[in-house]
Parts: sequence; C-alpha cells; structure tokens
Amino acid sequence: MDLLIRDVTLLDGSIRHIGVTGNRISDIGPDLPTGEAIHTIDGTDMLALPGMVNAHTHAAMVLFRGYGDDMPLMQWLEERIWPAEAKLTDDDVYWGTRLACAEMIRTGTTLFNDMYWKVPNAVRAIDDAGLRATVSGGLISGGFLGDLKGEIVQLIEMYEAGEFPDRVRLSIAPHAPYTVTPEDLEWCAQLATDHDLPIQIHLSETLREVEECVEKHGVRPAFHLKRCGILDRPTTLAHGTWLDRDELAMLSAYPATVVHNPVSNLKLSCGQGREVRGWFDYATAKAEGVNVALATDGAASNTNLDMFEEMKFASLMAKHASGDPTCMPAAETVDIATRGGADGMGWTDTGRLEAGALADIVLLDLTEPTLSPMHDPASHAVYAANGGCVHTTICDGRVLMEGGEIEGYEEIRARAIEAARRVTGD
Amino acid sequence: MDLLIRDVTLLDGSIRHIGVTGNRISDIGPDLPTGEAIHTIDGTDMLALPGMVNAHTHAAMVLFRGYGDDMPLMQWLEERIWPAEAKLTDDDVYWGTRLACAEMIRTGTTLFNDMYWKVPNAVRAIDDAGLRATVSGGLISGGFLGDLKGEIVQLIEMYEAGEFPDRVRLSIAPHAPYTVTPEDLEWCAQLATDHDLPIQIHLSETLREVEECVEKHGVRPAFHLKRCGILDRPTTLAHGTWLDRDELAMLSAYPATVVHNPVSNLKLSCGQGREVRGWFDYATAKAEGVNVALATDGAASNTNLDMFEEMKFASLMAKHASGDPTCMPAAETVDIATRGGADGMGWTDTGRLEAGALADIVLLDLTEPTLSPMHDPASHAVYAANGGCVHTTICDGRVLMEGGEIEGYEEIRARAIEAARRVTGD
Repeated sequence: MDLLIRDVTLLDGSIRHIGVTGNRISDIGPDLPTGEAIHTIDGTDMLALPGMVNAHTHAAMVLFRGYGDDMPLMQWLEERIWPAEAKLTDDDVYWGTRLACAEMIRTGTTLFNDMYWKVPNAVRAIDDAGLRATVSGGLISGGFLGDLKGEIVQLIEMYEAGEFPDRVRLSIAPHAPYTVTPEDLEWCAQLATDHDLPIQIHLSETLREVEECVEKHGVRPAFHLKRCGILDRPTTLAHGTWLDRDELAMLSAYPATVVHNPVSNLKLSCGQGREVRGWFDYATAKAEGVNVALATDGAASNTNLDMFEEMKFASLMAKHASGDPTCMPAAETVDIATRGGADGMGWTDTGRLEAGALADIVLLDLTEPTLSPMHDPASHAVYAANGGCVHTTICDGRVLMEGGEIEGYEEIRARAIEAARRVTGD
Repeated sequence: MDLLIRDVTLLDGSIRHIGVTGNRISDIGPDLPTGEAIHTIDGTDMLALPGMVNAHTHAAMVLFRGYGDDMPLMQWLEERIWPAEAKLTDDDVYWGTRLACAEMIRTGTTLFNDMYWKVPNAVRAIDDAGLRATVSGGLISGGFLGDLKGEIVQLIEMYEAGEFPDRVRLSIAPHAPYTVTPEDLEWCAQLATDHDLPIQIHLSETLREVEECVEKHGVRPAFHLKRCGILDRPTTLAHGTWLDRDELAMLSAYPATVVHNPVSNLKLSCGQGREVRGWFDYATAKAEGVNVALATDGAASNTNLDMFEEMKFASLMAKHASGDPTCMPAAETVDIATRGGADGMGWTDTGRLEAGALADIVLLDLTEPTLSPMHDPASHAVYAANGGCVHTTICDGRVLMEGGEIEGYEEIRARAIEAARRVTGD
C-alpha cells in the first residue's frame, strides 16, 4: 500500500480508512487495511471527497484573470482578450496552464475538460502538474485562424502514437453551432467516430444563438447538433442556459452531458433582463434524466477556477430559478461536480470514492472556522466551504498538495505573471 | 507609531505605507512615515482593504451552520431552529458568538450588525474577540417570548451606564413589520429617538410579507415603516428583496440603508418562480441615491459569514437581474461592502482606508494561485478572492490575525461544537 488516509470523515458522516495502491483506491472501510503504508495521512478533522471535476474550462486563460471585468462581452473580446491572445507564445500557454493547474490543485480539482489553443503545450503542463484532463482539438469554421483541421488531425496522430501521458486524453471541440458550419460539424462527428473520441462544444449560452439557429437552420441548437451527428458521440455541452424542455428530453436519449457554468453565465449576463427567463433548467434536466456536470468556464469570465464556489452558485441558483429551496440539494450538487463531470467526459473510473476507482481524492480541513461545527458534511462542502478549505489534493495516487504547499509554485507564478504582463501590456 | 504596513498594494493599484497610531490610521502615503514602529508588517504581495462590514447577521447562529439545509422555510424553523434555540444558554450564545467572530476575523470582517437574543453574552464575546459591532435589543410583539420591551430598556440602561466596550454600540431591533404591531413600531421609534440610537429591522424579504402589509395596512412595507416613525432614525433595512421603485425613491430622503443579503435570499428562494421577479433592485436603488450595504444574514441560512463570497454573489446577481454585465462593477461592490455598511450603521469613521479613520484593515495574500496574476485589484477582491485569501485582520489598531492564526481558537471551536451538539442533539 502506497498511501493510507486514516480516520477520515466521508460525505455520509461515517469515519473510514482509505488505502491507495499504485494509482487506485485499494481499500475503503471501517477497518484498517492490512500491510504497511509508505505514506500515512491523519484524516482526523478532515472530510474526504472525490476530486472535483471541472467539466469546461480554458485553462491558460488564467493569464487574463480580471483583465477587463464589468465590460460588455463584445467590447471585452475585441479590446482586451483577442489582441492579448494573438500575442500568446507556446511558452505562455505552458505557464498559463501550469498556473491554472496550481490553482486547481489548491482548490481541490483533479480532472478538467480543457478547450484552448497550442494544445501540446497544455498537455506538457498538465503532465508536469500531475493532474488529469481531457484536452481538445478546436475548430472554428472560416479558415481565418489558420488550418485548424490540420492541427486536429496532427493532435490525433500524436495521441494515437502514444505521445500523451496516461492522465491526458483527447477530444474534438467544434467551438459552437454558431461558429462552425453544418458541414464542419459533420466532419468533426465523423472524425470522432473514426478515432473513438469524445466531443466538447459550447451550446445555447445566449438567447441570440438560439434565435439565430432557429432562423438559419429551422431548429433549436440541440436539434441542430443531433442532425449533424454530434450527439452520436459522448459529448459535453457547455452552458445550456437556454435549452428548453424538448431539447432536454431529446438529449436524455443520447450520451450527452450538459455542463452548467453558473458563475460565467451570471457574470456575462447570459440571462438577459430583470424578469429573468434564461437559466439552465436543472429541475427539468434532472426529471428527464439528462446527465449534468459543473464547470467554472475560463478564469477570464469567472474570475477563478474554484469548484467549491461553483457548487454553491449552482445549487443556490437552482433554488432561485425554480422557486424551490429543496431543488439541487447538497449531496446531489457534489455528485454533479464529481461523478457527473467524470462520467460525462468518459472518465468513468474517477469522480467517486470507492475501491477500484482512480485515487483522485481531496481532503477539506474541518478545523477551519467556516466549517465548524458540522451537522451535515455534504451541506458543508457545498454551502460553507471554499477552495481555500482544501488541505490535501491527491491525483492518480500522488499527493500533489498537503497543507497548502504546491511543488514549484513560486516559479510557476513568476513565469505566468511575466507572460500575462507581456501579452496584456499591464 | 504602533504598527507599520510597508509596501502594500491599495485598491487603485498604488503601493503605499500605512501607519497606525493607537486605534487609528495615522499615515497613508507613498513615503515612509517618520518614527519607529513597534510592529511592522511587510505588505509586499498583499492587497489592503478596509475591513469588511457585515451589515446584518445573527452571529451565534453559526451553531446551526448546515443544520437542516435544503428544507422549506417553515419546516426548517419549526422542526430544527426553534426547538434548538429554545435550549440555548447564556454560555452557548457566548461561545457561538466567539466562533462567529473567529470566522469573521478569518475571512476579513471587522464590523458587524448583530440581531440575536441574550445580548450581554454577545457583547462579552465581541469584546473578548476584539471586533467591532452594533448589537440590538430585539422586539417581536405578542408577549410569547417574555418581556422583550423590559429587556430592551435594561440593555439601554447598561449601555448608557458605560457597561459596553467602546467597540460595541446598541441599536433597537423591531423584528419586522409583519411580527411587530404598528404601536410597537412607534414605541421603538420613540425609544430610539429618546436615547439617540439607530434601528435595525427586516424588510420585504418575501412577497407574502408585502402582500400582507398592503392588505392589512393599505401601503407597502417601506411606507408602513415611514408612517410608524421608524425611518426618522438612522435605520438598516435587511433584505429589501421586493422593494419597488416608489419605496426606493422615498427611502432615499431618509437616513435609511438597504442591506442586501444575496446568498440568504437565494438559499431560501425568496425570489419565487422560474420567471424571477423578486430580486433587490440595485440599479434603481443606486439611481435613486439610496445607501446600500451588504450582509451574510445568519450562518444558518447562508452557510457561512464570508463577505468576499457575498460580494461576488451580490455583483453577479445584479448583472443577472438587470441584464447588464456592467451593473455593480467591482470597485462599487467593495464600497458597498465596507463604507456602505459602516455609514449605514453610523460608524462613519471606519469602512475606509484614510488618515484619521479607525484602523480596521484586512490584507489579502496576492501569492494565492486564485489571485495570480493581478490586472485589477478591485476585480480580484470581488470576483477572485474568498475569505481564505485573508492573511491579516486588524481591528481597532490591533492585529487579530496574521498568517491565519487566531488566538484561543482551539478552545472557541471545542466549546462551540459542544454547545451545538447539546442543543441540536446531533
């Protein structure tokens, strides 16, 4: 046994011992596992959770954290983000992704779904950080960003040649129905089928997209994706703010997961108007049996990658939007933020604390004032905790943080700050 | 000079030195103040803010943190909170308030507006913790909770006899227009006038209250308070979820402050229905010139006392509810959460970082991954930080926390947990 976590509290309030052998949970139960452990963690006054799963983000965009907040979307993109992104080098993406990984380790995320450019640099950063991720080959139609299809094919070649570490997988990421032509969507679906890859895509983030899709293609966006074959692959659909009941009912018959991004949707006012109608309809998604996951989106529109904060926003907004204070109760929220994302991304052997699962585990420090006293562990994880309450982060059986310290962090921070200054001119 | 904070970043991005003499800021500027300091803090990589002001809470209710979440309001009150509260002893309120103070120190709050029972115990706890607060003599009409008017009069006698520490002031707290008769509201207003005390009261938290008030008194709740003389005193009005344009316009002519509690309002679904209409109308309040403050409400309906989290909820919900991503920009949110609350409570010499103001200061640790890199300090305070990013908390010139350690915390936590277990049976 490589690692033993003794006397740790689980979500159901029980106190257990967790044994880790190699990169998997080998034991979890009331009795101490037999055999000596190489490393032992005292789990007294700690709450163990599966590592959080951030099912939609643009990791390297931590470089633009807080760069142009409180601005209208198009002005922000045109005046701030796009000019800065145009200056990003390979190294910048590497150090940006390293900083994002450091933040995720600090705040208890062990698996994420990434959508960004210069992917091989992100892969290297994720590998060096020790986290788990699905990266993506991205496509926007029109050719003005270069030969993106060629880049996707190259990424698949690298991936199939075994040049990715075990902890990193590849997906195909057509950007959104409004930026990718039906022909290109079909191309992506076929490529994903040929190479047995999952898909990630933005869907129905704003009302305008929905209206444009209906006007142009005669159907709402989820049905348009269905028609283009996208839904035949395991797909994560980021946002889904405006999905209606028919779309949610249809999606439940496909291997699709709606990835809710509450903070980003609020920050960019995707709901429009004081008499709010646009909000991800969790109650219906649940009733229809759609798999739901949770995500922070990129740091530029959040402004952090803290999944504990995201859980609180998701659950409270579900109560607010449904008018029902019992909607999305705490244990369900934790499930969405862990198993929901992992299953949606096809990483079905993580996102849960059970024997045989990958050892992706976080420990919350229950001695924090914010977590004392504790009547209900799940409620504490969702409503009381923030990412700063994470004491220990374990991914793939390896302790990446214990007591707040992350190896190499000082250099990562310095390099990322340097890159951010150069590309933004700040 | 008792304390010197060197080379610290301010909200406007400038780097300054802050000198503290006694309990006040004696210097703040680009040049080092003359004279030796007894204690020096290196402010490199730290962001200085005024201490957060939590303008409406029920501090000792941290004992019920997470005790019955995801339940409908009345069931929660009748089955959980009221039976547990009936068992609270004087000591329980003392230790509950101490734990609340520890959490506030940990998360950067230095002044709060408290509304709870067994007030002398809370006063003692606040004094021992070193924080600043306004406590209140509470009134619910009907006499079923004992002689509350007698208790208020007694509190005023204690207060006027100088039995409160300098850091604690008294207010009168009629609970709400729907639990206090017009005659009793008038009694409170008169008492507050006679003794020159401010008032705190709940107002328009739910739609039902508004409808009942109109039915019973012929006017909406804010106009009812005006008629009963409450608004002639400096008053903090907690919630204001359903205040309409006429009420907000009227309030702007009185020394009244609306205290927004976004997390609590979401958690208890005070907005009702998927097509949400009930949300504090910040844009109108601002346009009409109403002073606005921010608060967590009690931990039982939050589940923490973290004002940094509360700032993010307030600002993002203002954008969502107004449909305008530029509504309640970050610097304005910080102002509401500090000066807005302090002014509203009549503590007009705190809630700001300037020479002559009380030395209530918090320092955020900018080396946290979540706060790196930094393009805009105000944006970071509101959108990126959580209470766990607070490195140092200073109240009344005294360093209450430096690097996360709070004096006596272990005993406070143990005693509070013991009290919580006894009264809840958990």
